[in-house]
Amino acid sequence: MGDHTSNGSANGNGHGVPTSTLSTTPFPASRKIYVSGQQPGVRVPMREISLTPTKSMNGTVTPNEPITVYDTSGPYTDPAVSIDVRAGLPPLRRQWVLDRQDVDELPSVTSAYGRMRAADPKLAELRFQHIRKPLRAKPGRNVTQLHYARKGIITPEMEFIAIRENQSREVARELASRNGHGGGTAQHPGFSWGAAIPAAITPEFVRDEVARGRAIIPSNINHPESEPMIIGRNFLVKINANIGNSAVASSIEEEVEKMIWSIRWGSDTVMDLSTGKNIHETREWIIRNAPVPIGTVPIYQALEKVGGKAEELTWEIFRDTLIEQAEQGVDYFTIHAGVKLAYVPMTAKRMTGIVSRGGSIHAKWCLAHHQENFAYTHFEEICEIMKAYDVAFSLGDGLRPGSIADANDEAQFAELETLGELTKIAWRHDVQVMIEGPGHVPMHMIQVNMEKQLKACHEAPFYTLGPLTTDIAPGYDHITSGIGAAMIGWYGCAMLCYVTPKEHLGLPDREDVKAGVIAYKIAAHAADLAKGHPGAQIRDNALSKARFEFRWEDQFHLSLDPETAKQFHDATLPDNAAKVSHFCSMCGPHFCSMKITQDVRDYAAQKHLDEQQAIQIGMKEKAEEFKKAGSEIYR
Amino acid sequence: MGDHTSNGSANGNGHGVPTSTLSTTPFPASRKIYVSGQQPGVRVPMREISLTPTKSMNGTVTPNEPITVYDTSGPYTDPAVSIDVRAGLPPLRRQWVLDRQDVDELPSVTSAYGRMRAADPKLAELRFQHIRKPLRAKPGRNVTQLHYARKGIITPEMEFIAIRENQSREVARELASRNGHGGGTAQHPGFSWGAAIPAAITPEFVRDEVARGRAIIPSNINHPESEPMIIGRNFLVKINANIGNSAVASSIEEEVEKMIWSIRWGSDTVMDLSTGKNIHETREWIIRNAPVPIGTVPIYQALEKVGGKAEELTWEIFRDTLIEQAEQGVDYFTIHAGVKLAYVPMTAKRMTGIVSRGGSIHAKWCLAHHQENFAYTHFEEICEIMKAYDVAFSLGDGLRPGSIADANDEAQFAELETLGELTKIAWRHDVQVMIEGPGHVPMHMIQVNMEKQLKACHEAPFYTLGPLTTDIAPGYDHITSGIGAAMIGWYGCAMLCYVTPKEHLGLPDREDVKAGVIAYKIAAHAADLAKGHPGAQIRDNALSKARFEFRWEDQFHLSLDPETAKQFHDATLPDNAAKVSHFCSMCGPHFCSMKITQDVRDYAAQKHLDEQQAIQIGMKEKAEEFKKAGSEIYR
Repeated sequence: MGDHTSNGSANGNGHGVPTSTLSTTPFPASRKIYVSGQQPGVRVPMREISLTPTKSMNGTVTPNEPITVYDTSGPYTDPAVSIDVRAGLPPLRRQWVLDRQDVDELPSVTSAYGRMRAADPKLAELRFQHIRKPLRAKPGRNVTQLHYARKGIITPEMEFIAIRENQSREVARELASRNGHGGGTAQHPGFSWGAAIPAAITPEFVRDEVARGRAIIPSNINHPESEPMIIGRNFLVKINANIGNSAVASSIEEEVEKMIWSIRWGSDTVMDLSTGKNIHETREWIIRNAPVPIGTVPIYQALEKVGGKAEELTWEIFRDTLIEQAEQGVDYFTIHAGVKLAYVPMTAKRMTGIVSRGGSIHAKWCLAHHQENFAYTHFEEICEIMKAYDVAFSLGDGLRPGSIADANDEAQFAELETLGELTKIAWRHDVQVMIEGPGHVPMHMIQVNMEKQLKACHEAPFYTLGPLTTDIAPGYDHITSGIGAAMIGWYGCAMLCYVTPKEHLGLPDREDVKAGVIAYKIAAHAADLAKGHPGAQIRDNALSKARFEFRWEDQFHLSLDPETAKQFHDATLPDNAAKVSHFCSMCGPHFCSMKITQDVRDYAAQKHLDEQQAIQIGMKEKAEEFKKAGSEIYR
Repeated sequence: MGDHTSNGSANGNGHGVPTSTLSTTPFPASRKIYVSGQQPGVRVPMREISLTPTKSMNGTVTPNEPITVYDTSGPYTDPAVSIDVRAGLPPLRRQWVLDRQDVDELPSVTSAYGRMRAADPKLAELRFQHIRKPLRAKPGRNVTQLHYARKGIITPEMEFIAIRENQSREVARELASRNGHGGGTAQHPGFSWGAAIPAAITPEFVRDEVARGRAIIPSNINHPESEPMIIGRNFLVKINANIGNSAVASSIEEEVEKMIWSIRWGSDTVMDLSTGKNIHETREWIIRNAPVPIGTVPIYQALEKVGGKAEELTWEIFRDTLIEQAEQGVDYFTIHAGVKLAYVPMTAKRMTGIVSRGGSIHAKWCLAHHQENFAYTHFEEICEIMKAYDVAFSLGDGLRPGSIADANDEAQFAELETLGELTKIAWRHDVQVMIEGPGHVPMHMIQVNMEKQLKACHEAPFYTLGPLTTDIAPGYDHITSGIGAAMIGWYGCAMLCYVTPKEHLGLPDREDVKAGVIAYKIAAHAADLAKGHPGAQIRDNALSKARFEFRWEDQFHLSLDPETAKQFHDATLPDNAAKVSHFCSMCGPHFCSMKITQDVRDYAAQKHLDEQQAIQIGMKEKAEEFKKAGSEIYR
């Protein structure tokens, strides 16, 4: 998302994060497990949270089976993997790419800029030391997952994703029914607004959704370190976090740690929106260490190359930048090809004009030259580049509204129609496409965005920034936008671009990034629950059961942020005994509704009456009393 | 809301807050204004935020008219009022009450407990020093706002509310159109799901809504310090904050400051959910200093009186507690009269049983005695008490779901039907009623709650706790629930009971209370926008205009939390110059989308072409180019 406020991330800890301080601590009570597939090398990481047994008041002890959750954190949280950011992550997907025998290893990078940077001795200190030679499709070949899908090929990436999306929920169901409590996997049916979510995700289903264009697998052949993931309406709702250095400050190692930090808390993809110096080298470090797909907005770097003067941009510079980034391994590009010259004046009367940086760069260029947007006129050439590396389009919403007042206006929807046209062109090239969306939209105007996008863009996945549901709370825009994000996720949006509390105000620090990611994990999960995504409720059920049974530690471990949950609990009752005692810190020993509920159940049991009987007797007595009193006022 | 986790509030600052540290600082660039009505003493406080002028790049200066916002903070933010918590606030409404000539001043308090406390010399130090003699309806009279409304009387309270709800938006409209920018008061039509919100709120409309039971004015005749406010679907969405001491800690002065702190950030009512010692005296302090309605859950105090043993509760103790609190001035009582014996076993198979404290107390009592809930069987007697003081019912949802798994179940909806029956009984007594609602509900199951409530409870106002849209984020439940609150507010919920980040974990401190209130102001305002509440968008527009024009200080001043907005901005660019310069901290001087948009506008102006013309020319050139190239791929 080319959002104007998320391009940088200031790290409060000053410059230079040594490798030893990377966020690699596993989550409490959790271990990394791997589920293997049929195809070689398909080994899907998940996080297993172990739980303590339930101890009932009559002394019986019932085990609680571990819960498996989706894990975006990559090898960083696996103590068995030794991490060295200077070496990068193991290239998990490289053999799959090579096995398809449709790529060439190039002797050196193709882009003029990439060559210049590689030849500059002053950059030696900054440069990643183990740069692989880039891969590119053999002449006439197409290496996109969409291309394979349409040919009926189930790639290892697709099988990986099927296993990952299922999150072993069949195992959870089986264990639950074996233990007799069953309820743990029960869930509400959901209402999915016409999505087509199957009970179990098969590799063939993944293939089919990709082939239809309803889902994308961002997976540049030059980013073999990434663990395959999918973005589509019929899969779990995903989130993206933006990081990046800016003109102001930031070291390369800080950038890597920011990425690790974002995925630790659950970001499914990361966009590198750097705008400062050494963008090229920073990006290399990030990609080599990223187990999630990386997105960029190439026009930002292109603009840097012309000293920030939009009117001096050329197609050639933009093209060189696309190739430069594609050969580094960027998995998706935000390209604002829908900002057509004719739409620019539609924004002149807006409350907040054009707020997308990418959008305004293209708009300025169009006006300066009185020419159509070069990303639009050269769109087929861009497709040629994308398909040679499998870079997916994230078609940018350069004219998205920047205020409630501007929501759903003519400019926004005109651009959306054009994005639909471009989607068809990209699909003709078998290039994967998702569509970016707003922005600032009041609640009642959110759904029409989803509906129009599905229609105009032929069900290509939607990827929105929030939307923010009010403008009046700068400092809290993770909340104003978390509301809109949850809703549009429910309506069918496939990925939610986070907004941090610093949105509109400044550069997010670590705590802001975490606050943004967690708010968006909440939004995405709330959407999965509402859509009735199979298995989505397992974690809610496990946590609520732990809560009801006063298994405090389990409650912490099952939460999105165990540290904060524990810390908040301990702020009131730090005593360790409180975490195992049968009352909670809020109510004290004599006054807890959960305890009373337990008493209600126990009471009935003691009387050797099932509760239904107890009530029937109660009602009979009551009825007689009423009759005696001649009172019928309550009926 | 009888929520089990919000009964206490630990103040991180230790014991005893001296009066001088009460939160009385006015908001920046704001002044308290008062708008007078027709009836004597009707003087409605509002907060006026002054704005700096717009300076365009060509040097013209256009003033920006001040914005008036709804102000819940009471006299505390008026520097002209000298605050003395030991004396209490001026009794604004007392003369209105006396002028109606339907009340008696009692020689002393009626409740046995109240008399006992008043006679205890050990409590002298704790006791509020200026206790007025209680008022009560003359025999045979009814002093509720509903009673007056049905008789066609427009009370001063109703006129006060009409002025307050309008927030001088006609003035804003007139000023905007005079200044020619107009856009500031334009807004989206909204979609209100069948609400009947008029373009302007008249005193007669207020009366009519109260008479129909669609809105309530919580206004105990013994709480003359409160500034009248209304809770109803056709008015601004309101929020409630819970405060209270608990067995653990807290001083009386801390409690008063907690109330002041909550209303400072926007809480429309405050519930005192104290459960510790000296509840009676604490409540007196809070009410005497509260400019907002105060709600309680009387069963909590009744339970304290029997040593925490639910089965020892009696109707007589409960009744005495109702009278005790009514004579102190509590404006609404949460009463769980809908927890009928027959519904209790419906909860036995739940994931989380009964989580409402009030609900579980009544349930336990019912089972212990095999008798119907005394609050249900004595409901008419309760009405007799309520109407003698104008205490409104907040009919408690004692069986609300405590987990996603338990949402919308048989127990919950059975109780809701009973609350509908009780509503009719209360209305027969001209007693005001609102209905409490859940709880934990996934997004797709929220709307049916609203629909069923409207139908079952004959459009009495709905007052919900969240609902939380997922269980997996303890530590962030202001967000999980803020999502649900915004949605149900949009669907028609009249008041949203806040949830703090400490929900389920511990006692909220000051920062938690503020975080909860702000999250709920966001939810309520997002709902007002979506409903199309007239004038709701004025503040969003003003803030977005300020943002677009780089009026940083104005942006801060217009935000819900000016301090945090400014602090976040300054964290990146502390320099004062940055707050007036024409670029933002996120992008640097050459790289800001808003600046580029301004350039786009300026560019068109300089060329002496209106932008539409510029484009038409652009398109003509383009068309020729296309023709030359023979290219039609983009059409």
